Amino acid sequence: MNNTHPIGVFDSGVGGFTVVRAIRNALPLETLRYLGDTARVPYGTKSPDVVRRYAINCSRFLVDLGAKILVIACNTASAYAVDAVREHFALPVVGVIEPGARLAAATTQNGRIGVIGTEGTIRSASYQRALSRLAPKAAVHALACPLFVPLAEEGMVDHPATRMIAEEYLEPLLAQGIDTLVLGCTHYPLLAPLLGEIVGDNVTIIDSAIAVADAVRAALHGAGLAATARSDQDLYYATDVSERVLRVGSVFLGDGLDKVELIDL
Amino acid sequence: MNNTHPIGVFDSGVGGFTVVRAIRNALPLETLRYLGDTARVPYGTKSPDVVRRYAINCSRFLVDLGAKILVIACNTASAYAVDAVREHFALPVVGVIEPGARLAAATTQNGRIGVIGTEGTIRSASYQRALSRLAPKAAVHALACPLFVPLAEEGMVDHPATRMIAEEYLEPLLAQGIDTLVLGCTHYPLLAPLLGEIVGDNVTIIDSAIAVADAVRAALHGAGLAATARSDQDLYYATDVSERVLRVGSVFLGDGLDKVELIDL
Repeated sequence: MNNTHPIGVFDSGVGGFTVVRAIRNALPLETLRYLGDTARVPYGTKSPDVVRRYAINCSRFLVDLGAKILVIACNTASAYAVDAVREHFALPVVGVIEPGARLAAATTQNGRIGVIGTEGTIRSASYQRALSRLAPKAAVHALACPLFVPLAEEGMVDHPATRMIAEEYLEPLLAQGIDTLVLGCTHYPLLAPLLGEIVGDNVTIIDSAIAVADAVRAALHGAGLAATARSDQDLYYATDVSERVLRVGSVFLGDGLDKVELIDL
Repeated sequence: MNNTHPIGVFDSGVGGFTVVRAIRNALPLETLRYLGDTARVPYGTKSPDVVRRYAINCSRFLVDLGAKILVIACNTASAYAVDAVREHFALPVVGVIEPGARLAAATTQNGRIGVIGTEGTIRSASYQRALSRLAPKAAVHALACPLFVPLAEEGMVDHPATRMIAEEYLEPLLAQGIDTLVLGCTHYPLLAPLLGEIVGDNVTIIDSAIAVADAVRAALHGAGLAATARSDQDLYYATDVSERVLRVGSVFLGDGLDKVELIDL
């Protein structure tokens, strides 16, 4: 293993492209390999054992491509499979929950933290558990926002209907006086500008993707594996490549997604 | 087989409850057995072979419960598996596409028919194919409305944000001068009142669930299997029973959903 090896990122679908984008911005010398398990998306409705099995599959694929670090850019897989992936592979592994929770714990002044995510993520209480460990005195207000994923996937990130829905969703959190809001879903960074306008300057938005990129940077430096020059282009893989995967993936990557290679796990 | 046997209805999830509701309204003496394959939802992203296998699984379960007729209340399964189910079981089988397409063909005056559905249904062109057979001279304008399912599942059926989104979706269809609009998704009947306001009196909305109920009535009468008195209560089954299944199912059934039995297929 040396520092020219790629960073391996996987997600159940295309939401993880927001994490790819954040890592690219933060670590422009690093090479990335992304795997979207689009044939088996969503993971959120599957049992923990199945999610762990799929996460090991995805990790194995990235390890075989030479990954020097694994990023689990999927909330469900992060909640259920980080430990299993760490046990299976002798590599640094970064999940998507811990970094955002850690940054929120370090950010809040008044100890009132809001967390938004999908129904599955909020029900799993994974952010709530991480925050009770990292910020035991904080009051955590968690809220499912089921329409944000389809709205983001439709690219309606600054649509008046999205604003109306977001205002309704966030109203009870703002009424609790939160000063920190964790975007607990890989799709939500696309909505960050709109959500920022709604919550105002007194609430700090924690973009999990940016927090993950910071955690990856720290892990690479800690292991002496940070790249010092670009060695290769980024490559994208998926277990199903439809017109939709390319279209929605482009929205999330924020860049043309010219090629996604179809693979079988 | 006699007329006291139940009608078997299945769907990949809970959307098919709109069909249950329509059959109940149209045929109050009939007993129903509903199966939602909620552990494997959605079917729309799966390959035709897999969908056929699942449809046979679901049908087998309902046949073992004594079903006298099978209703496939799922667009994807109707598109791929009606013939396979007919071959496997010596029963009348009603899919969800043909009845709506037939009613649209009989309804249009100006030969301009709009069809709305999920991305999967529209891409499969199943309504377009049925209409080209049933109304060969009609111009069919098909449009995917991806946000309608999540909006309906959230119960936002008369929300101003939903109205705003619906107006944008339907504008190009109305610009084509359609006089008939097929609701090509089991979730959409919930939005029918709102959509009716948007399209106005000059456009007839075809509710597929009502068309399916009419087709079931005709099939039962044709086979001499129509019930003449209520013999049992309706029973609901699902392959995964979550709080969400019960909540969203109640919205779609339009009635309290007090009990859904968990089964394994």
